[in-house]
Amino acid sequence: MKPVAVRNIERADPNALGTFEALGVATVHEALGRSGLMKPYMRPIYPGAQIAGPAVTVLAQPGDNWMIHVAVELCRKGDVLVVGCTADNTDGMFGELLATGLRARGVKGLVIDAGCRDVKTLTQMGFPVWSRAISAKGTVKSTLGAVNVPVVCAGVNVEPGDAVVADDDGVVVVPRRLAVEVAQKAQKRADDEVEKRRRWEAGESSLDMYNMREALAKAGLRYVDRPEDV
Amino acid sequence: MKPVAVRNIERADPNALGTFEALGVATVHEALGRSGLMKPYMRPIYPGAQIAGPAVTVLAQPGDNWMIHVAVELCRKGDVLVVGCTADNTDGMFGELLATGLRARGVKGLVIDAGCRDVKTLTQMGFPVWSRAISAKGTVKSTLGAVNVPVVCAGVNVEPGDAVVADDDGVVVVPRRLAVEVAQKAQKRADDEVEKRRRWEAGESSLDMYNMREALAKAGLRYVDRPEDV
Amino acid sequence: MKPVAVRNIERADPNALGTFEALGVATVHEALGRSGLMKPYMRPIYPGAQIAGPAVTVLAQPGDNWMIHVAVELCRKGDVLVVGCTADNTDGMFGELLATGLRARGVKGLVIDAGCRDVKTLTQMGFPVWSRAISAKGTVKSTLGAVNVPVVCAGVNVEPGDAVVADDDGVVVVPRRLAVEVAQKAQKRADDEVEKRRRWEAGESSLDMYNMREALAKAGLRYVDRPEDV
Amino acid sequence: MKPVAVRNIERADPNALGTFEALGVATVHEALGRSGLMKPYMRPIYPGAQIAGPAVTVLAQPGDNWMIHVAVELCRKGDVLVVGCTADNTDGMFGELLATGLRARGVKGLVIDAGCRDVKTLTQMGFPVWSRAISAKGTVKSTLGAVNVPVVCAGVNVEPGDAVVADDDGVVVVPRRLAVEVAQKAQKRADDEVEKRRRWEAGESSLDMYNMREALAKAGLRYVDRPEDV
Amino acid sequence: MKPVAVRNIERADPNALGTFEALGVATVHEALGRSGLMKPYMRPIYPGAQIAGPAVTVLAQPGDNWMIHVAVELCRKGDVLVVGCTADNTDGMFGELLATGLRARGVKGLVIDAGCRDVKTLTQMGFPVWSRAISAKGTVKSTLGAVNVPVVCAGVNVEPGDAVVADDDGVVVVPRRLAVEVAQKAQKRADDEVEKRRRWEAGESSLDMYNMREALAKAGLRYVDRPEDV
Amino acid sequence: MKPVAVRNIERADPNALGTFEALGVATVHEALGRSGLMKPYMRPIYPGAQIAGPAVTVLAQPGDNWMIHVAVELCRKGDVLVVGCTADNTDGMFGELLATGLRARGVKGLVIDAGCRDVKTLTQMGFPVWSRAISAKGTVKSTLGAVNVPVVCAGVNVEPGDAVVADDDGVVVVPRRLAVEVAQKAQKRADDEVEKRRRWEAGESSLDMYNMREALAKAGLRYVDRPEDV
Repeated sequence: MKPVAVRNIERADPNALGTFEALGVATVHEALGRSGLMKPYMRPIYPGAQIAGPAVTVLAQPGDNWMIHVAVELCRKGDVLVVGCTADNTDGMFGELLATGLRARGVKGLVIDAGCRDVKTLTQMGFPVWSRAISAKGTVKSTLGAVNVPVVCAGVNVEPGDAVVADDDGVVVVPRRLAVEVAQKAQKRADDEVEKRRRWEAGESSLDMYNMREALAKAGLRYVDRPEDV
Repeated sequence: MKPVAVRNIERADPNALGTFEALGVATVHEALGRSGLMKPYMRPIYPGAQIAGPAVTVLAQPGDNWMIHVAVELCRKGDVLVVGCTADNTDGMFGELLATGLRARGVKGLVIDAGCRDVKTLTQMGFPVWSRAISAKGTVKSTLGAVNVPVVCAGVNVEPGDAVVADDDGVVVVPRRLAVEVAQKAQKRADDEVEKRRRWEAGESSLDMYNMREALAKAGLRYVDRPEDV
Repeated sequence: MKPVAVRNIERADPNALGTFEALGVATVHEALGRSGLMKPYMRPIYPGAQIAGPAVTVLAQPGDNWMIHVAVELCRKGDVLVVGCTADNTDGMFGELLATGLRARGVKGLVIDAGCRDVKTLTQMGFPVWSRAISAKGTVKSTLGAVNVPVVCAGVNVEPGDAVVADDDGVVVVPRRLAVEVAQKAQKRADDEVEKRRRWEAGESSLDMYNMREALAKAGLRYVDRPEDV
Repeated sequence: MKPVAVRNIERADPNALGTFEALGVATVHEALGRSGLMKPYMRPIYPGAQIAGPAVTVLAQPGDNWMIHVAVELCRKGDVLVVGCTADNTDGMFGELLATGLRARGVKGLVIDAGCRDVKTLTQMGFPVWSRAISAKGTVKSTLGAVNVPVVCAGVNVEPGDAVVADDDGVVVVPRRLAVEVAQKAQKRADDEVEKRRRWEAGESSLDMYNMREALAKAGLRYVDRPEDV
Repeated sequence: MKPVAVRNIERADPNALGTFEALGVATVHEALGRSGLMKPYMRPIYPGAQIAGPAVTVLAQPGDNWMIHVAVELCRKGDVLVVGCTADNTDGMFGELLATGLRARGVKGLVIDAGCRDVKTLTQMGFPVWSRAISAKGTVKSTLGAVNVPVVCAGVNVEPGDAVVADDDGVVVVPRRLAVEVAQKAQKRADDEVEKRRRWEAGESSLDMYNMREALAKAGLRYVDRPEDV
Repeated sequence: MKPVAVRNIERADPNALGTFEALGVATVHEALGRSGLMKPYMRPIYPGAQIAGPAVTVLAQPGDNWMIHVAVELCRKGDVLVVGCTADNTDGMFGELLATGLRARGVKGLVIDAGCRDVKTLTQMGFPVWSRAISAKGTVKSTLGAVNVPVVCAGVNVEPGDAVVADDDGVVVVPRRLAVEVAQKAQKRADDEVEKRRRWEAGESSLDMYNMREALAKAGLRYVDRPEDV
């Protein structure tokens, strides 16, 4: 790891980001081919937020939030800050003051593979955070990491400028170059679901809707009338 | 495991289920002799729901929700769908569309030893789910499991038709044949607590209320006035 | 471990406790030199509560809440009950009735390194609990522990009378003898933050605010304009 | 749960057990249709043991090994003792003396969803144990459970007399009534592997051996020569 | 936490330590009244070591091993170094060189609530370590902690000079002032077991040996002949 | 994720790999600037192996080892197979037959962020595996992943051809382009340690060896003679 901070990065397409923010994580994750999803231990500190933005990335050392301070002034309006860590850590690397600084720059939210604190204040501010833990554990500012280099966050490799989508279901990352293509697929998927949802509501079986009966029979599924017949 | 789906099962007594739904998990679990409780990692996706119903059971493979689709049309009004998995898995096997299908059939809720997604929509729908994780991870439909066979879900063996009770404290399962007897014990327990609660509210010590002072002394508890006397 | 219950303990200074309750966990933890914080698995059963009080301590055996019953009548108005366990355990050692008894005595809340149940009722009562798990698992009353002896709870050694502070960020413990000194430091810290917050809101970089640019350069941080320059 | 101890149970077929012990867990698990496997947190206290025997089952309370004492005299030569627990627990419920008692009765080993202690002595004795933890934590003898009733152990429902197979890969349980049929399938599977292993050793690709190339192509796998071609 | 290193401490009685080392963790833990045991995630890096010695204690920050360096020269022949951490951490704070330094001073081993590295070399040296993880993750030397102050290590409060006993079953800590008394109880316990072991070997039931039949009956245990009789 | 298999990749420098294999994980990890280390849950199935080789990478679906079969014939002598998974999974994706196939091609070992089975046989073969779990759970061959694309394995992004180093301390990954430079730094580090080790063995304090006394004093460390002086 080289201790470096990159000032300028290319950001994912804004229209694609708008689509992602409207559709949410599950749809985008499917459109991406069921990859790019962060581990489910990443949870929002309060329910209801749904955001998408280009990643400004931070590689931090456990128990040290120095690099987050460095990253703040490199953020732009609409960005999402993404923090990975060189070792598993739950310390409260982020709180009210850093959130105030990010908010002043128009940053949409934070995704951090470590801990977060001041969650009551952050909730009142409406500044959304997805983190692996809530912890008041204070951190130091003594060891370098990097800003805007590729980082692994909660099991996903995030490149600066990649599209980060987060909601109550978790966090998914779309590589910057694929954002436009994935946004189209995601929109199509959402459009297709409108009719499907109507049929589900009407009580139609998905076995008919998706033509699964034949495949089930071929795979060997046997129906019996009563438990004793198994 | 035989790949089989059982169409008709016997369901726990409706009156007993009504009692269970009114009294909740903790009381039912005590009345059952402190057994039948699923592991505490099973959490509701939103607070406040309290349900009881007969189990329709699913045995699924990790990352594969095919059998849940098979189970939907075998559910009846008032049922609770219970999904176990052949290996630990947090993938989002269940979401908005399956919930819509279950809701159309009058199913009360879902208990799944795996992940759930679309939690914001499910919360808006008021369709309660108890799961081990929230995850947008998509699943496939390629390997058979079984429906309405005994399954282990979160540490408890569930037979089809068993009474499943779920609230903010977790999930408990009452064997179908014991439902009526346990409902009576649970009701008695709840009735007895009314007077006890009044005495607790009045500040009476439980050591007197439950005659514990003698047993404590006999077991060797020693009271001292100050820390230095230990 | 000696099976003993200590009746009278010295409690942390009430004014210091008032300051702690007003300022919350993160600030107090920093003022204590970043120690005394319980592990982040300790979570409130509902959001929003913020309390501070002197600890009445309980050492319990796994699956056994006998000693909590013993502790209730040794509590005074304003206390916080703190329960440690001789082995990791998530059983629901505490519920509505014990809460009613503690409430009748004016106890502010409970911190328990085990499970809690009846969380819906406790939420309605507004009786705050920080616990490692929510579980309906019933417990027995058969093995002695101790009351008002030092206990380790969620990684922190708690002496009877120590100041316990709890909010949405977790739980911190201030040794009784240090309470007044730490309260002064915490208040100073909070006062200093008022001006800092204003500067953060104005968009000033923390690198300037805290004079970090020189230290970063000295540590070897290199700024580059584009990813290709790394 | 009823506090009961069943004296006489039907045990799985001895010849089938012999086959299981010779073939080991992975093969038996496959022959059973990829089910019946305990969770992978169950580990042997020393490597190399491989056993199979009919289950004598114990349902224990957390931190209480009373029922194991009850079970010992109900065991016969060749049995495997299986202990489940009503709540997650890692206490050292089993040690040298109980092992000496089981050994005196010809019991082959122990499978316990809790902790084990005296592991150095047990290793010297050559008495194999599969457990979820190693812990010296002492237990009490105060609350009843049951012996030779169905118990869930590490995620698997075990009926008294079921065939339990354990080796360095873990533990699998074959329902008693299926033991003979599964033993035949397992033996066939093992026989088939002899030729397969020879072909693997010769460096033949499994894509040819199992005719997977066509299925891969049909599923959409694309081969490219270099990373740049992706 | 005050950043301080205490040069001279009082150490537990050498004869008691000798008894502890001979008898091992399980027996000492029982003699102490079933308390003082570290959590079972503390495992030896290689099997077979059994030690006891007075604790030299270190409170370290996550990812920082500076204080271990400070502690080395404060150790004496026969000591056991005990390292607690202000937050959960698995970084490899300890390796070959520090072990060489401790060995040169006659230190018996290390107990660390964090990670350890160079485990192959440590095994070859025969320098025993009990740790929560094995990890090569390097640490820094930048933030102060303390040496020879009370620390919580793996759930146990350890005072400098307390008796630390460690073997394949885990780690137990005996308060210095109780060491002599506990050693006597432990020896008596071990002596009593000699006769008991003989009776276990002879196949006598523990229900007779410990007179448990009456208590079981009184508690309500019912024996039945066959599963159908439950 | 695109379902693709890349046939030809560039591999890390052989001399650098030789150096890495000789020096082991901890030294290489330090030389890389304390990054690139997989999470410590990755453990060898038997102690003592130490390998280094270029990565052939696999992205697999949970419970599905189809892509590992595809990868085997793309491996060359000296390679290390690295398997990441799109979701956390402990199923036994790898066993004796696949190991036989890899061995026939001269592959040095396997690093898999999932489960491994047949560990007794693998140990006898001397085929080293680092995995997150040991599990006999069988897998299917039904969903595509990819071979020789970048994968995240146990928290580290691995590009095809990167240098993978594994021993008893864990697994570290060196980016292919940095391999030669890092090998030089690692060798220098190892050379420097020879003299250091001699001084440690002689009992010299590291506070003198690394000139830490002044820094400690400046940071505020205070030495006191006795606990009472704190």
